[in-house]
Amino acid sequence: MSNTKALPMLEPEAVAPCCPPLTERPLTAEEAERTAKMFKALGDPVRLRLFSLVASHEGGEACVCDISDVGVSQPTVSHHLKKLREAGLLTSERRGTWVYYKVAPSVLAAMGQLLTAAD
Amino acid sequence: MSNTKALPMLEPEAVAPCCPPLTERPLTAEEAERTAKMFKALGDPVRLRLFSLVASHEGGEACVCDISDVGVSQPTVSHHLKKLREAGLLTSERRGTWVYYKVAPSVLAAMGQLLTAAD
Repeated sequence: MSNTKALPMLEPEAVAPCCPPLTERPLTAEEAERTAKMFKALGDPVRLRLFSLVASHEGGEACVCDISDVGVSQPTVSHHLKKLREAGLLTSERRGTWVYYKVAPSVLAAMGQLLTAAD
Repeated sequence: MSNTKALPMLEPEAVAPCCPPLTERPLTAEEAERTAKMFKALGDPVRLRLFSLVASHEGGEACVCDISDVGVSQPTVSHHLKKLREAGLLTSERRGTWVYYKVAPSVLAAMGQLLTAAD
């Protein structure tokens, strides 16, 4: 088999939006397993900053080329963006030289809903 | 010095609710440092289940004595509840034999707001 240059940007094993507000009922083990991955991905200060950089960037997407001021090297930025993608928080698309990341909107909404206090 | 039996339930070093929605502007390093702690605390499946157990428990609070079905020992439950308290997600109060935990409501709201998608 020959190596192809255009690597497909595979979506991670589906991290589907999940679960009612945490105040509504206890999560099942399976729900917690799935959801904890997303929280864990945001549980690192550099990743959290990168996520907010992408989320607040013009047009709702950013590439490594847009990110220069988080105090870590570009390979490290790429590594963390990949982790965020694997957690289902970002989606990615290659355009020319760069991979562009954007927030997976339904996931953000689902996480926000999880943290909604029940009335 | 004598040991006292009634240990004060000290609040953790204030983990204040923080920051605008992640979609609004990039977090500063300091904001990310502070906020990542909360996400990290929820980034473990057992802790996330415990948090939802407390959050959804009758009266909005629970003690270790209310928790029996998460598949870990009582000392482990206590350990994780303490971690959640240290992250500022739960508050605790000793009443008689047991320590009761409840969700720190402002923190939950603040985290929910962080994850709100900007319109």
